Amino acid sequence: MKRIAILTSGGDAPGMNAAIRAVTRKAIHEGMEVYGINYGFAGLVAGDIRKLDVPDVGDIIQRGGTVLYSARYPEFSTEEGQLKGIEQLNKFGIEGLVVIGGDGSYHGALALTKRGFPAVGIPGTIDNDIPMTDYTIGFDTAINTVLDAMDKIRDTATSHVRTFIIEVMGRDAGDIALWAGVAGGADDIIIPEHDFDMAQVAKKIREGRDRGKKHCLIVLAEGVMSGHKFADQLAEYGDFHARVSVLGHVVRGGSPSARDRVLASKFGSFAVDLLKDGQGGLCIGSLNNEVVANDIVATLEEKKHQPDLSLYDLNHQISF
Amino acid sequence: MKRIAILTSGGDAPGMNAAIRAVTRKAIHEGMEVYGINYGFAGLVAGDIRKLDVPDVGDIIQRGGTVLYSARYPEFSTEEGQLKGIEQLNKFGIEGLVVIGGDGSYHGALALTKRGFPAVGIPGTIDNDIPMTDYTIGFDTAINTVLDAMDKIRDTATSHVRTFIIEVMGRDAGDIALWAGVAGGADDIIIPEHDFDMAQVAKKIREGRDRGKKHCLIVLAEGVMSGHKFADQLAEYGDFHARVSVLGHVVRGGSPSARDRVLASKFGSFAVDLLKDGQGGLCIGSLNNEVVANDIVATLEEKKHQPDLSLYDLNHQISF
Amino acid sequence: MKRIAILTSGGDAPGMNAAIRAVTRKAIHEGMEVYGINYGFAGLVAGDIRKLDVPDVGDIIQRGGTVLYSARYPEFSTEEGQLKGIEQLNKFGIEGLVVIGGDGSYHGALALTKRGFPAVGIPGTIDNDIPMTDYTIGFDTAINTVLDAMDKIRDTATSHVRTFIIEVMGRDAGDIALWAGVAGGADDIIIPEHDFDMAQVAKKIREGRDRGKKHCLIVLAEGVMSGHKFADQLAEYGDFHARVSVLGHVVRGGSPSARDRVLASKFGSFAVDLLKDGQGGLCIGSLNNEVVANDIVATLEEKKHQPDLSLYDLNHQISF
Amino acid sequence: MKRIAILTSGGDAPGMNAAIRAVTRKAIHEGMEVYGINYGFAGLVAGDIRKLDVPDVGDIIQRGGTVLYSARYPEFSTEEGQLKGIEQLNKFGIEGLVVIGGDGSYHGALALTKRGFPAVGIPGTIDNDIPMTDYTIGFDTAINTVLDAMDKIRDTATSHVRTFIIEVMGRDAGDIALWAGVAGGADDIIIPEHDFDMAQVAKKIREGRDRGKKHCLIVLAEGVMSGHKFADQLAEYGDFHARVSVLGHVVRGGSPSARDRVLASKFGSFAVDLLKDGQGGLCIGSLNNEVVANDIVATLEEKKHQPDLSLYDLNHQISF
Repeated sequence: MKRIAILTSGGDAPGMNAAIRAVTRKAIHEGMEVYGINYGFAGLVAGDIRKLDVPDVGDIIQRGGTVLYSARYPEFSTEEGQLKGIEQLNKFGIEGLVVIGGDGSYHGALALTKRGFPAVGIPGTIDNDIPMTDYTIGFDTAINTVLDAMDKIRDTATSHVRTFIIEVMGRDAGDIALWAGVAGGADDIIIPEHDFDMAQVAKKIREGRDRGKKHCLIVLAEGVMSGHKFADQLAEYGDFHARVSVLGHVVRGGSPSARDRVLASKFGSFAVDLLKDGQGGLCIGSLNNEVVANDIVATLEEKKHQPDLSLYDLNHQISF
Repeated sequence: MKRIAILTSGGDAPGMNAAIRAVTRKAIHEGMEVYGINYGFAGLVAGDIRKLDVPDVGDIIQRGGTVLYSARYPEFSTEEGQLKGIEQLNKFGIEGLVVIGGDGSYHGALALTKRGFPAVGIPGTIDNDIPMTDYTIGFDTAINTVLDAMDKIRDTATSHVRTFIIEVMGRDAGDIALWAGVAGGADDIIIPEHDFDMAQVAKKIREGRDRGKKHCLIVLAEGVMSGHKFADQLAEYGDFHARVSVLGHVVRGGSPSARDRVLASKFGSFAVDLLKDGQGGLCIGSLNNEVVANDIVATLEEKKHQPDLSLYDLNHQISF
Repeated sequence: MKRIAILTSGGDAPGMNAAIRAVTRKAIHEGMEVYGINYGFAGLVAGDIRKLDVPDVGDIIQRGGTVLYSARYPEFSTEEGQLKGIEQLNKFGIEGLVVIGGDGSYHGALALTKRGFPAVGIPGTIDNDIPMTDYTIGFDTAINTVLDAMDKIRDTATSHVRTFIIEVMGRDAGDIALWAGVAGGADDIIIPEHDFDMAQVAKKIREGRDRGKKHCLIVLAEGVMSGHKFADQLAEYGDFHARVSVLGHVVRGGSPSARDRVLASKFGSFAVDLLKDGQGGLCIGSLNNEVVANDIVATLEEKKHQPDLSLYDLNHQISF
Repeated sequence: MKRIAILTSGGDAPGMNAAIRAVTRKAIHEGMEVYGINYGFAGLVAGDIRKLDVPDVGDIIQRGGTVLYSARYPEFSTEEGQLKGIEQLNKFGIEGLVVIGGDGSYHGALALTKRGFPAVGIPGTIDNDIPMTDYTIGFDTAINTVLDAMDKIRDTATSHVRTFIIEVMGRDAGDIALWAGVAGGADDIIIPEHDFDMAQVAKKIREGRDRGKKHCLIVLAEGVMSGHKFADQLAEYGDFHARVSVLGHVVRGGSPSARDRVLASKFGSFAVDLLKDGQGGLCIGSLNNEVVANDIVATLEEKKHQPDLSLYDLNHQISF
């Protein structure tokens, strides 16, 4: 291939810009041309496409968000949308496409693949909910942002001897809650992938209180229920002065962490290697510290992401 | 005086520990003894009092929250509570009291003053809503924490071409919203001290959008209404894809900024100067860069805090 | 005036971009045109000048450095350089100039003023060493950056029971050392504006050590001597396991603090007010919380900056 | 085993406290008693040992440094030192020891093992230079701290069109330089494990300059040479306005990152599992995302740490 394109799609994630930079620079290094598509699949269909050169991706490795913008675009699930997209790619002479995004974006890449256009997916989402990869771009930054908030909340929780319910993003996945919970020393972590017993939650808070513990932090994945609903249910088991903190879109932004930048750089470079060899229909992942390419059809249709539940047990053994 | 005590009361604020350290060290430097009272006025009445020595306040200048803990204690407004508090102070041989906190805490200090016990107030609250001081301890840290969140939200707002309503703390005061709004380049700042016209807010968003502006950030003081209510009202004027971010208790915590630590150190040291001279019934402030002592009765009964509304006009002239 | 220009000169400082944004937006708000001059006075003489519009200064309020770049340009002290600069300004129809920078930059503005071209100076330097202003743009960010480093160094100093000499920037001024020293709980602060006795420094370290204090942090302004030289001299008074940390250019960068952005916004807006009224030959400052305009000739020729030495005494009374 | 002890040794690293907490809590959870030894092997020999309970390790997961303090203690390499250490352990009825630290600390654990005392090593060092583990505790925090500095330096480098040599820690290992270099978009990374050609370094800077690139950042591992020496050698190939920034002990401190806290929690918990089973003579590592136990003798005597050199090649392909 001599000309490829790149787009970001779905919710933005810190490190997407590092991936855009890596794809662009690596492709240029390999003698290819690179085009950037604005606003994800919406921009693809609309033909909002421009050539990217070395300086276009300079000074962006450290920036949150995505310089190619993103958008949700359900219309791309239609035949009409997909054909229009391929038409635009052909018009620009583009032979391969890199799609950075989450679950929904992968379905766009899958659709192009099924229609014979070589596409490679790079997992970019703070939720870490993509099958066949241990980590997604943005996850490491997100858990550090949550952790920073937890450390701040601990200050005020301790000063007032209070319980805090900290609701975190993650859609249906509990990864952010799990990792931030262990790292933040949460008294309890409530995730969709594991049941919980509110009476036990209350008992643990009470035991900590009785032992003289000043603060209690409970990390709650949004996929379970809202923080306010949780606080209401908890209140039926006693008065724990519980406050609710909803860490919303703040967790999506910010300068990417070192890990996310390195992961994004590796993924972006590898995507170019694949397309250069004419390979499409793949999605990239990191498994056991190794960058791998998985079949995108098999990954999406047969695999399911599972969080590291050993962290759940670990937390119960060391956080009390 | 040879023996003084210190307590923190009301909502905690970053820098309270720096003030506790300054009071303790300065008093010891002046040959006085210092006692720390846990849990504010509740601890005073309960006699939860301990001697503070140099190492007790070591390594705390950088910590958020308050090592003396805090509590709200409405019972201190009763004669019984106040007499019991003075009894405890007398029991420990304490001759003067430093109270660090906000509005409510000042009323406790005022009550002691009216009963003849020398008390000095230090303004410690993130809300900046204390009369006769330009700044309170914790305000500078709080606006930087809000700003950090705004910078993160800008990433995701830009990537998705969205409008964000950012609800910030401040109780009835708009100071946090005003300062963070100007510093964060907010398109609009909505505060209790200034009226607003939702149609104008919508018009401004639309004009920015038409000009190609990618993000729109509106900072809303909690004293006006909730972010969700604001978003609902805004939605009547058009679809701006507005998201709401409620920056809650996170803003209360964190390591204090340089300004807050320096201000707290100056205030704490000055409080000891006053008590050493036998002066009570005062509250400390910073007016035009100078540390001053105001009469606590006159301050609380006659004065009202006003935010710097010139910032409101400034924002309209440079943020569009 | 209908057309003004802006340049940044000398060492860059966080908040310069916020000032560039404020000048540009305020001028456009007032119906004026604004031109940006790249690379300071060098770019002025070379005619590296471009029109600035609203979007050109979008999304820069949070960025460190200066989007107009900066340069030192001693050639502007010659008559030839100055006449060439004015020629360029006239060529572009520019009637007034805003110069953001430190001491050296002010001399460029002064030179233009003396030749009849209206120039207004805005104090932008981390060193805070400009006369007739309490604070310069960048100073607040710089002291917070130093503070962040001190908090980190304290961790390792405590863990190893060590003394650290922390050398900080500031050229001939001790402001950064003073503020960061008080805020960071430094055991000693060594600045050019106050003498010191190495035997006393050693004695204080020894007393802290004897009392069980784990860490000792000494903040040293670069204007006194280098950290390594200081450590060598200290070693003659005993073995304090002193390590040296030189906080160099890191302190110049970073996203500006809330204060610096607000100050920069006020200064930039006020500069436009002055030029709009046809006033030049002025430099802007903040005195006792008020934004003021001083005569640039009198300021540079008659005034001298003085740090707040009360902080020096305060530190001796509360840091031990 | 019913009673174990823990110590930290060598240079401190962020996350050591999270490991101390995990060991202590997990052991208590398993019905064991835990003792903390202050000041590493020096404290062991001196008998500076105290019982640790749940609250003793509360509120430390987020703190840099080590609450057990650390020290270098070459005397432990002698038979006398080792026998004295075992005598102290016996005196307190301690049956197993967890040693958190780097290379030198491992040799202490190895010596105890060879004398029949069960010891387990946990890799805690920012340098990442321990064999048989992909990551050590503290490394992730350290590379993020370096990255934060690089992002700041980029501001000022860009504003002044300058080249910066950024010297980073790592002893004989290039891991910190490699990871931070890739994450920070360094133009070149100079490490002990790979040769370099100064003429090529200069050529790359010149090409970037010619292409209009504003900044050039070179990350240099301290194991190669000092930053100042490097700058002197570079100057022989042209005037690149190179500045040197030495990121020293700052990189050792700070609140640990999410990864480091999670890794430390896993390692600490696993160490207790091993000792509970009566296993000693092991050192813990993370290989391909799995926590493993390696024979400490074989690890130290036969294995050598190797950085991920694929990052070196990656950087050359995407950073220009």
